[in-house]
Amino acid sequence: MGSDEPASGYRRWALRIEYDGTGLVGWQRQNNGVSVQALLEEAASRLVGDAPVMTATAGRTDAGVHASSMVVQLDLPDDPRLDARQIRDGVSFHLKPHRVAILEAAQARPGWHARFSAISRRYCYTILNRPTRPVIDLNHVWHVRRPLDAGAMHEAAQSLLGRHDFSSFRAASCQASSPIRTLDRLDVTREGTFVRLDVEARSFLHHQVRNLAGSLQLVGSGQWPVARIRDVLEACDRRVAGPTAPPDGLCLIGVGYALDPFA
Amino acid sequence: MGSDEPASGYRRWALRIEYDGTGLVGWQRQNNGVSVQALLEEAASRLVGDAPVMTATAGRTDAGVHASSMVVQLDLPDDPRLDARQIRDGVSFHLKPHRVAILEAAQARPGWHARFSAISRRYCYTILNRPTRPVIDLNHVWHVRRPLDAGAMHEAAQSLLGRHDFSSFRAASCQASSPIRTLDRLDVTREGTFVRLDVEARSFLHHQVRNLAGSLQLVGSGQWPVARIRDVLEACDRRVAGPTAPPDGLCLIGVGYALDPFA
Repeated sequence: MGSDEPASGYRRWALRIEYDGTGLVGWQRQNNGVSVQALLEEAASRLVGDAPVMTATAGRTDAGVHASSMVVQLDLPDDPRLDARQIRDGVSFHLKPHRVAILEAAQARPGWHARFSAISRRYCYTILNRPTRPVIDLNHVWHVRRPLDAGAMHEAAQSLLGRHDFSSFRAASCQASSPIRTLDRLDVTREGTFVRLDVEARSFLHHQVRNLAGSLQLVGSGQWPVARIRDVLEACDRRVAGPTAPPDGLCLIGVGYALDPFA
Repeated sequence: MGSDEPASGYRRWALRIEYDGTGLVGWQRQNNGVSVQALLEEAASRLVGDAPVMTATAGRTDAGVHASSMVVQLDLPDDPRLDARQIRDGVSFHLKPHRVAILEAAQARPGWHARFSAISRRYCYTILNRPTRPVIDLNHVWHVRRPLDAGAMHEAAQSLLGRHDFSSFRAASCQASSPIRTLDRLDVTREGTFVRLDVEARSFLHHQVRNLAGSLQLVGSGQWPVARIRDVLEACDRRVAGPTAPPDGLCLIGVGYALDPFA
């Protein structure tokens, strides 16, 4: 990992980007559809005369998942004429009309890597809790008709904080070498018909946030007692946990670094 | 107006509805595109065996304007088998896949009219204030790149409260018999990169909220001093005010009645 430096003749930029994941296959390039990575690399390449460019992200979001503040590294051919603002505006221009754009750009510090230097990831998971299907918030919420008790969900969530084996909330496809993670925040709050999960950790297992949302929803609807969440955690068995909540409600809202790459 | 009662054999229902105005021509039926009214009446008609149905709204929003809580009356053939929940869910079902749905339904009190009984309308106008174009909030905000001072906008806005001749903020196409309106609330607040106008009045002139937003944005960006807003109001001349802000940022968020039709 430490050897990951820009190629010779390339300079690394840190980008803060926003995307709407609706209709995309997620961050990573795939054969079955359009990815954020492919859109971003094509747009950046056009800015530098179609030269090859390389990217890596702080978090490889799944199909349909959104990001309001994802951090990505972009290795571009070194060109003293290019400044941060031109990269922000130029890449955003070439990304049109896709729903991906650059919020900030900054030259990366030596040794900085978007993924390996990140020390925290923060997600918001939004549930629309009402009888009627989503309209204005279509594709950006999980629609749950049954009334949810956000207070009970929050109480159950607190029993998951700290360092644990999260095997019960881990996708079968997860490629992480260990199921141990440290959950630093899992706040559940209601605002009108919205119930929001605010989740933070150094890193997450595959589908971890969506699996936490799927189980907490069972507590909120009264199908599970609050204490069952802790039992599910301790079982270390995906089969005893709730369903995986849909991607629509998930949004990456921040990535933390020891030194802010944009400061 | 007082003679507006449901036709013989019809029963009036109050509906609270949500719609995403993107791509629609607004509330009112028109020849040049799809209206909320046409979608709603077609869906309601399908629920009652294709019988004719009649609607009227508390506010005729323009093309591209949204509503998170609009109130509409729906006159349906009287059928004792139909209850409020069936109307909410049945009309919402027939409205699919359009971005219009029924949040609540209730049988109307005698004499109640969605428009003439309304005593207040509340709108939110949202500006996305950052260099990068809207992504997740596409079609739901006005994008203003120049940094805005929300405090200055709020201060200017307070000079518009109360009963005034709002000719300076009235569309040429406005069909109201008088330009006199009473503005009860015009709060401007910033939340991150969003600047929101929260506006309330008994009723509004055509384009009044969008014209207020267009002028206040000139104060926020420093092009106009705070005091100029009051001068513009007093001029009673549309030509001295700022531009009409785009419909994307506008959302009707509530309609008030002396008696809550859904209580």
